[in-house]
Formats: sequence, C-alpha cells, structure tokens
Amino acid sequence: MKAIVITEDSEPVQLADVPQPEVGDGECLVKIEVAALNRRDQWIREGMYPGIRFGCVLGSDACGVVEEGAEEWKGKEVIINPNVNWGDDPEVQSSEYSVLGMPKNGTLAEYISVPTDRLQLKPEHLNNEEAAALPLAGLTAFRATIKKGLAAPGKNVLITGAGGGVSQLAIQFAVAAGANTYVTSGDPDKIGKCIQMGAAGGFNYKDEDWFKEASVIGFDTIVDSAGGNQMNNYLKIVKPAGKIVMYGSTTGYPEKLDVFRLFWSQAQIIGSTMGSDLEFEEMIQFVNKYQIKPTIDKVYNVNETVKAFDRFKEADHFGKIVIGF
Amino acid sequence: MKAIVITEDSEPVQLADVPQPEVGDGECLVKIEVAALNRRDQWIREGMYPGIRFGCVLGSDACGVVEEGAEEWKGKEVIINPNVNWGDDPEVQSSEYSVLGMPKNGTLAEYISVPTDRLQLKPEHLNNEEAAALPLAGLTAFRATIKKGLAAPGKNVLITGAGGGVSQLAIQFAVAAGANTYVTSGDPDKIGKCIQMGAAGGFNYKDEDWFKEASVIGFDTIVDSAGGNQMNNYLKIVKPAGKIVMYGSTTGYPEKLDVFRLFWSQAQIIGSTMGSDLEFEEMIQFVNKYQIKPTIDKVYNVNETVKAFDRFKEADHFGKIVIGF
Repeated sequence: MKAIVITEDSEPVQLADVPQPEVGDGECLVKIEVAALNRRDQWIREGMYPGIRFGCVLGSDACGVVEEGAEEWKGKEVIINPNVNWGDDPEVQSSEYSVLGMPKNGTLAEYISVPTDRLQLKPEHLNNEEAAALPLAGLTAFRATIKKGLAAPGKNVLITGAGGGVSQLAIQFAVAAGANTYVTSGDPDKIGKCIQMGAAGGFNYKDEDWFKEASVIGFDTIVDSAGGNQMNNYLKIVKPAGKIVMYGSTTGYPEKLDVFRLFWSQAQIIGSTMGSDLEFEEMIQFVNKYQIKPTIDKVYNVNETVKAFDRFKEADHFGKIVIGF
Repeated sequence: MKAIVITEDSEPVQLADVPQPEVGDGECLVKIEVAALNRRDQWIREGMYPGIRFGCVLGSDACGVVEEGAEEWKGKEVIINPNVNWGDDPEVQSSEYSVLGMPKNGTLAEYISVPTDRLQLKPEHLNNEEAAALPLAGLTAFRATIKKGLAAPGKNVLITGAGGGVSQLAIQFAVAAGANTYVTSGDPDKIGKCIQMGAAGGFNYKDEDWFKEASVIGFDTIVDSAGGNQMNNYLKIVKPAGKIVMYGSTTGYPEKLDVFRLFWSQAQIIGSTMGSDLEFEEMIQFVNKYQIKPTIDKVYNVNETVKAFDRFKEADHFGKIVIGF
C-alpha cells in the first residue's frame, strides 16, 4: 500500500510502498480516505522529535471506513483517537504513552489497523476532510480551552496564533462555550476571518504594543502554543487569578519570566498536551452538539505530501492541511 | 511613642518618636508586645517596593493586647491580620489591596490602631514571640502549601529555602497535613533541623546535581520563593501533572523556562501571594489544631532594629526574626 514514511534521506518524508498492516486481535482495519498533518509531523521531518524510528508511517489523524475486524464496526465511517496508552489517570498520560504516528505506524497510509476502542463514529455533519482534521487538534484544543482553560459565558478568552489547526478549533470551542473570544495573529486577514467565526476581536502580535490594548480587556484565560517572550505580555494582560494555558513553545523559551507579576496577580501557567481518552469522547460530543466544523486550509493528494509539509513549514496556513488518498 | 519608620536617610530604617495613633470608628488600639520582620520590610529598606511612603511605620506582624475599642476585645491578647482591603474574591486581592506596614502604618511601633475585624485571639499554645511571627508568614505559607499546593497524605511536597520564615511554616504545615515533606537549603545544618521537625529529607541546592536525586522521588507539589534558574530544575523533579507554587522570586527571573517540559508533563506553575481573610482564619484554626509553633531565629529589642534588618539581609536566619517592645 502507499504510505508516507520517515526516512534518513535529505528529504525525510517519502511516499513508499509498504506492506498492508496485519490486523491483530481486538483491532479493526481502516481504509483511510483522508488524513491530516500536525505540527509534530513537521517536527519529525525536521528531526526535532524524541525517539524517531525511521521507516515509521507518519500521521496522527484520519477519517476512513472499517474494512475488517469487529462486525458492528464493519462499513462504518470512523475517525481515530490518536492516543496510544494514555493510561488510567485522567490528569496525565502514562509513561507508556505515545501519539499515533511515531513510534507506532500512523495514518498517512492507505490502511491502518488500530484497537477497536480507538474508533469513534465520524460526526455526521462533517465531510471527510473536516473529520480527518478533527482528532489531534480537537483533543488538544478541548483540553486546553475547555477543561483546563474553563472557557465559559462571561469569561474573556484569548487564543493566540489564530491560523493554527489547534487554535482554529480552540477559537470555535471558546465561542461555542459562550466566552468572549479574542485572537492574536501576525496577519490582519486571519484576524478578520476569526471575527467572522464569532471572535469578538483580535490583536496583531507584530505590533509591539498589542498587549496595551489587550490589557484593557483583561483575560481570564489565554491559550497559547508559541511561548517565547510573548509570555511576559500574557502576564500583563491576564486578569488577576487568570490562567495561561500552554500547549506548545514554537517560538522557543522566554528569556525572562516575570515571576513577580505571576505571584502578585495569583496567575497560573498551566501546561497541557493532548488529552485523555474520556476527553476525546467529550470533545466529539461537544463538536456534535455545537455542529463545529474544523477549518480546512488546503487539501493535497498523497502524491503531493512533501508540498503539504512545505505549506505547513511556511506557517501561513489557516486551519488544517489534509491529505486525500 | 517609639516606632520604626522608613526615611530617606542613608540608613532608611530609623527608630523615631511619633504620635500615638488615633483610634477610628470600628477600630481597636493594640499595645504591641512583639513584632516580626518580613522580607518585604527589607525590600522597602532597599527601596525595592512599589509606592514607598516615607515616614510610614513599617511592620506587618504583631502580637499585643487590646487597650481601647470594642469592649469584648479589651484586655485580650491578639494577633493582627495583615490584609488591608483584600476584597470579596477569595481567589485574588482587590485593586485596593495592600499589606499592613506600607502604605498604612504598621506594627513596628508601641501602638497600632486597626479595624476590629483584623483581630484574632492569640493562639494559646504560642508565646508572644511565636504569635508575632505567625500572621504574614502563616497566611502566605497556608495559601501556597495547603490551599494551592494541596499538601495531603501520600503527596510528596518540596519546600525550598528551608530557613525562611514562610518556608519554615510551610514545612510544618505540609508535615501536619501528612505529606512526605522534603526541603532544600544551601546549609546542611538547616536541612538537619528540618528533618528533626518532621521533614523526610532534604537537598543542598548548591550541589549542581541536587535535582537528580530529587527526581527519583518526584514531587506532587513544590513551594518556592526563589524563582530564578532553579525553576527549570523544579520542572525536572515535579511529577506529571504536579504543581509548582511560586510566592516569590528572590533570586530573580529564570533566563529560560522549559515550556516544553511544562506542557508535556501537564505541570502547573501557580502564583500565590498572601491569602484571603477567610484563609487567615483557616490558617489559625490549622495552627491551633496541630499545635504548630513558628520557628524563632532571634529576638531583638526595638532599639536594635537595624541589626535585626541586617540579620535578615544576610539571609542566614532560620525562622522568624522578631522585635520586642
């Protein structure tokens, strides 16, 4: 079958012909229709991910149809929970945890075999591209924004980096939860699009003084994956006793962190990554309840996967980059 | 009356003769027997505190006897809640909040007049020095260790900087709450004393590799007021989903903060300062229940106050530095 594997070549991402996976006990074989890229795929491409196994099929997200396995799932359109061995603690993943697509073979392939308990019915209001875009980004956004960030009516919530796949869903989740939702972006067009999606406003983080305007509003919750020196701006605009939920650090680490402001304002910096299996189910219920549709940036054919990765690398996308088979 | 005031002299802390305070409506006049120093007093001395009002009587802590005011309080031995205008939100102080002793006249004086609702009966098991040592440090330690840090049986709790007035109480509170309590210090003798107080062990933070041994234990909660680059060590030794409660930043700000480790371990950095009026009452109940006695480093006479401040500045103390009148 066709699959996107990670190699030691100068271009590590390669389309290859690999054996179709064997279907283990308690597993279902899913014929993948659409997969989606995540930042971790690009990190793996750049060699910036721990424990890279060459030859591994990449990809954490997919929508497909069950071809083999449990009778009750056969022929069903499904999406796949990307958690591998989350474990028993709802608060934190176990030490055996990994994300589908490294080191376990992932979704950028014509077929994948996964334990039956990883399957969820595809939400009916989503097309294949939207459904494939949901799992990893939805889980990350749900835990960070709703479960940790407690976005709710009357709360001011800021989602930074408006174009990302996770932040797009975080914005929709916060809006659906009734929060006054604001965004940051380096691109005024993206801010405009977010306002059309229900955001109350936005700030251009390339403007050095953006935080002054934002501080007038004051945020109960800030959801961020950039990190870096903007973290001190977040401490200036978060309300007393407010929460800064961090699910990434794409711009690196802050050179200083204003600990005085942190403790004097009784603020919290909350680390969040992925989410529990229960949160995955809750996320899908939430998406169904509010008929949320992930934003699709662009659809590529599997033969154009390197182009799709390059699009991701440019970081100019707005929503999810997906791969059709 | 004698009072310790902050001046613009080369030695800002001066013993002065000032008028006895007038007793306002709803206030009680307390004849102070013993007061105590806090780090903020030294900060004010160093000009490192916002909004310094010269001529202000310093001091946030005291034990004394009510001489005038509400009949039911007259003659009672009391301690004083150092919160001024905490406000209605239990999570965070109001914008009108200040700590007794700047800008409002404080406890380093023969008399102070305070609103009656600031008074609490002196815990019976404490002598005057111990009672004077309790309020600010006890409130700070209680919120950070018990309310935010959730020290409890089965939890591993690390209190850093074992010699400080707050950390001494934090250690006692964590031990009383049943937590497996560890400490850090730069002085092995102080670690030994903490083990005598019920700590399970300690680490010398001057040893560059101290965190390696500590990481074998793994901490549910770390309570710290040092900040600085040790924060990245805390992220290495905190358990997954653990809490780092920061109530100070005496060694400055971290040069980098390992945000990756923060989010991947689902850890939290929680700012905490002082505590609500309700927490002040809960803290005193807790101190009474477990018969906790603040550690006294040294008692100075009010005439030796500059010496007492110098002792504080050297940061070699173990427990509270108190001032007798």
